[in-house]
Amino acid sequence: MIAVLCGGVGAAKFLDGALRAFEGEEVVGIANVADDEVMHGLHISPDIDTILYTLSGQVNPETGWGLSSESWRVMERLEKLGGQTWFRLGDLDLATHLYRSARLTQGATLTEVTAELAESYGLRLRLLPATNGDLHTIVSIRDDDGSVREVTFQEYFVKLRHQPLVEAVSYRSDSDADPTPEVLEALKAARAIVIAPSNPVLSIAPILAIGEIAEIVAKRRNEVVAVTPIVEGHAIKGPADRVLDSLGFESSALGVARFYADYSGTFILDTRDSALADQISSLEMRARHTDTIMHDTGTRTALAEFVRGVIEEA
Amino acid sequence: MIAVLCGGVGAAKFLDGALRAFEGEEVVGIANVADDEVMHGLHISPDIDTILYTLSGQVNPETGWGLSSESWRVMERLEKLGGQTWFRLGDLDLATHLYRSARLTQGATLTEVTAELAESYGLRLRLLPATNGDLHTIVSIRDDDGSVREVTFQEYFVKLRHQPLVEAVSYRSDSDADPTPEVLEALKAARAIVIAPSNPVLSIAPILAIGEIAEIVAKRRNEVVAVTPIVEGHAIKGPADRVLDSLGFESSALGVARFYADYSGTFILDTRDSALADQISSLEMRARHTDTIMHDTGTRTALAEFVRGVIEEA
Repeated sequence: MIAVLCGGVGAAKFLDGALRAFEGEEVVGIANVADDEVMHGLHISPDIDTILYTLSGQVNPETGWGLSSESWRVMERLEKLGGQTWFRLGDLDLATHLYRSARLTQGATLTEVTAELAESYGLRLRLLPATNGDLHTIVSIRDDDGSVREVTFQEYFVKLRHQPLVEAVSYRSDSDADPTPEVLEALKAARAIVIAPSNPVLSIAPILAIGEIAEIVAKRRNEVVAVTPIVEGHAIKGPADRVLDSLGFESSALGVARFYADYSGTFILDTRDSALADQISSLEMRARHTDTIMHDTGTRTALAEFVRGVIEEA
Repeated sequence: MIAVLCGGVGAAKFLDGALRAFEGEEVVGIANVADDEVMHGLHISPDIDTILYTLSGQVNPETGWGLSSESWRVMERLEKLGGQTWFRLGDLDLATHLYRSARLTQGATLTEVTAELAESYGLRLRLLPATNGDLHTIVSIRDDDGSVREVTFQEYFVKLRHQPLVEAVSYRSDSDADPTPEVLEALKAARAIVIAPSNPVLSIAPILAIGEIAEIVAKRRNEVVAVTPIVEGHAIKGPADRVLDSLGFESSALGVARFYADYSGTFILDTRDSALADQISSLEMRARHTDTIMHDTGTRTALAEFVRGVIEEA
């Protein structure tokens, strides 16, 4: 069994490839939920939803998130009513949130609800939220006037279109954000742990902010393989490059490797960055390179197969 | 100013007439919220919504509730996901619930949110929920096997299509279900209080279950005018006749008059039932009769004008 620490779009594409590359073996996705938000009373889990939609073949191919053949009847009406619509919720997408919110209200855990949704969406993947508890990514941003203020991840990412300078990122929990038994078991039982090509600071770090998860991953460092989300200094999607940069890491595969140095014994960088391999090796990481950009099914599968090869080479 | 105690469909039609009949005078609707339900995390106020939709001219004319030109994208999808869909929420209708739930989450009161929605929907009416607190109508029903169980109003009304025999009705509040200052003020300041032609047990009684409201209405009995929702023994809409009957009242205008005898000094019955006027008078109520069935704008206005005449005759 393979466990994959996951953010949203990049992780979902990687998982799509992994389900083919690791055919016959169980793949368990451990998803970031620190971006989850309650909006209009509905519990929204953006990373989980992106994985559900991608792996069920229903994702909007243009955005990488949301559903294809989506409609916007509810949002258009909500706009007329003067409601908050900066976080656009499509009609079909809303059904996912209604389902999740109803089940949570009934007392189901996020793990249970996610399993139910994964089944409804026909996923072959076992998909686990990192925690059933309350964990939130808080982003400190610098406003135009120079003042610093804290916003939630979605405010930063969606409302402000990840434009402001990020001064700091923290992970907060109101109550206990313990890992679930399912997550701990998967991380212990997996023959390898893969860190998907997701935003290190905003998608993976919140998973590792859960103490027991970080401990197991660090302890299993030799069986952990991280895949870069940065190629030639640029994030394939989203603000990972700028965030790494503003937090004092470097917006490069090397910066990502440094970020993961305590957790991952192997780092997969893009062939275009192969010149960085030596510096990454000096972090006591095995550095391997391949084409990491997943623009279609073939390249997704090829990347996952490369990861499988690297795991088996150990 | 006129205050009207309101349930859903019947009250909404009456208010529509009242806005014409009492032109130039403020009409305040005080709405039942004991049927409110949180579903899928969303706060739904069926009686308030029926009033919003009716008075904005957007109500579905076939059902008397819900919106015309409604669509069902979200519900159809939710059904595929295995979610609960017995309470059908249309796409446009959902926007109302999202708006309300978002504002309540932000700390607004139901009174504030209702005022905002009334403005968005362009209502000339001041619409007040009877309470901002938690009040629930609980219906004890007899199952086919003879056993009695308690269900919420919406389970009885929508899920079970108000078919089961009602053994008892009670009104429960988890926390304080105090009347709002706005409601108390309106009830005191109104030159007359009208009890709309709504279900006495399931729509009006929950409003009167709030102690301070009941006190004021009882004290102002001489300025209270109740309009029958029962004509020739039958409810114009819904199960009022069966419920009155099973609770030991009579499914007739007389049964309704008995139900209101402590609160209303005047009772308006349908001309078809004018033979009951003497018995109603014996309850120390002024009995007046007219055509109470509101099948169009003209008959709505005529009924409200008749009510105005009765108020002014006093």
